[in-house]
Amino acid sequence: MRGALRLLRFRGAAGGGPRLGLEEAPGGDLVDLSAAEPELPRSMREFLEIGPRGLALAQRALESGQHRVPRATVQLLAPVGDPEKVICVGLNYHDHCQEQGVKVPKEPLIFSKFPSAITGPFDDIVHPQDTSELDWEVELAAVIGKRGRHIEEAAALEHVLGFTVANDVSARDWQMRRNGRQWLLGKTFDTFCPLGPAIVTKEAVADVHNLWIRCSVNGQRMQDSSTRHLIFGVPALVAWVSRFVTLVPGDILLTGTPAGVGVFRKPPVFLQRGDEVQCEIEELGTICNRVV
Amino acid sequence: MRGALRLLRFRGAAGGGPRLGLEEAPGGDLVDLSAAEPELPRSMREFLEIGPRGLALAQRALESGQHRVPRATVQLLAPVGDPEKVICVGLNYHDHCQEQGVKVPKEPLIFSKFPSAITGPFDDIVHPQDTSELDWEVELAAVIGKRGRHIEEAAALEHVLGFTVANDVSARDWQMRRNGRQWLLGKTFDTFCPLGPAIVTKEAVADVHNLWIRCSVNGQRMQDSSTRHLIFGVPALVAWVSRFVTLVPGDILLTGTPAGVGVFRKPPVFLQRGDEVQCEIEELGTICNRVV
Repeated sequence: MRGALRLLRFRGAAGGGPRLGLEEAPGGDLVDLSAAEPELPRSMREFLEIGPRGLALAQRALESGQHRVPRATVQLLAPVGDPEKVICVGLNYHDHCQEQGVKVPKEPLIFSKFPSAITGPFDDIVHPQDTSELDWEVELAAVIGKRGRHIEEAAALEHVLGFTVANDVSARDWQMRRNGRQWLLGKTFDTFCPLGPAIVTKEAVADVHNLWIRCSVNGQRMQDSSTRHLIFGVPALVAWVSRFVTLVPGDILLTGTPAGVGVFRKPPVFLQRGDEVQCEIEELGTICNRVV
Repeated sequence: MRGALRLLRFRGAAGGGPRLGLEEAPGGDLVDLSAAEPELPRSMREFLEIGPRGLALAQRALESGQHRVPRATVQLLAPVGDPEKVICVGLNYHDHCQEQGVKVPKEPLIFSKFPSAITGPFDDIVHPQDTSELDWEVELAAVIGKRGRHIEEAAALEHVLGFTVANDVSARDWQMRRNGRQWLLGKTFDTFCPLGPAIVTKEAVADVHNLWIRCSVNGQRMQDSSTRHLIFGVPALVAWVSRFVTLVPGDILLTGTPAGVGVFRKPPVFLQRGDEVQCEIEELGTICNRVV
């Protein structure tokens, strides 16, 4: 479909700085957008600031059949490495509220990570010395493509470029019991936001509110839900957040996690060094990160 | 003293984009650093990433006596407009803990604003429709000059370039009673972080932990304390935050506010449209923002 793109960033076999690319199909080979259009910026945020003209160049590069790069030769990076904001939503799945015995919130609960928490789709999650309660949270992430404030819910998807997969890695001790119960520190250790593999533009997604969403640890299924169980959908969240702040291209909005996180299991389960966490969303792709 | 600089950003009389500059003396005329050294980046964050070589060029421009610009002809901008992080500290003055009847915290309490909250030292604070409890908080802000993680307290000042004045504008209803008591939204509306007028390098400050710090609203003194009443000083805060995240040049660390905020007055006082808020720290300078 017109406008359907899978945008990503990668480092080539020869090393060098980050490059923009396109995935031909989920998990498939890449097109080197930075080779096809050398004048484009190498930062996804700056690329998205260009708007429709940049996306048209990406579409042309994809259709050209040129500048193809075998997937196995590259290192995939987080599709956005330097957003102005990483906006997160708490308690946004019905099943996740149930598992912890809290009421469904009447308004979205917004918190944040620093952009320094972002790491690549297959990079390591560094287990801090400082926590003994490291946990996973697979999440649908929306990527903002167009600047806006006070966005109406009906117009909100115009401001969303597409979607990707995130793991909202959390140190539960820091989130829930320390730092005056402000969640920030427990959510924002370096590497606590694996992201990727690609930004799948909304034109390529049949129904973002009807995708299965799953997380496995060492091959064992821990979370298995659907985005149809979101309490506040993407348009409602974009509208809500834009009551407070101006959204800009590249901003990342993590929409919350479904049931099955470690802290609410009986007994609780936490990530240990050596574990492998795989997060997967239908149509979007898979990220897989080892805890080190 | 060698290394003593007052770095800022401004927009010139002819308009155009942001430029880097230097204040010759507090409140005095400027040196146009972007004219003296045209190859330097115009983003303060990118300038700080250059490190000592950039600062040496700034020193040379200051000493040259050339490219002087009268203060009255320029618009001062926030000295850093695009930091990766705006890190904030709560409950960090003894007198501020007393006024709200809470214990002195044993560890720093860290929260954040999005960079989109930053506004210039003389720009307007936009009173959101969405709050009826808009409040002021004068704060000493440290600006990071050198990348680091797990920084020792004894080495922490090596990572601090200098200091500036901030107003941690707060919507108390959103901070204290809504959003699941996560402070972020009440702290991060657009324009909720006036900053400036300059980054005063640490070499220019006699003792950052012994500066008077004041806030007036419509000329009436509301806060009047000293940075010697800080619970956690700048080195302790830098060390603490770097346990969690990598600090990078341009990061802003707001160190908390002393007693005298509106919400804890009896009866409480909140900002109204038309009010003028002036925040001032000894040796650093004054910012003044109208509420609109």
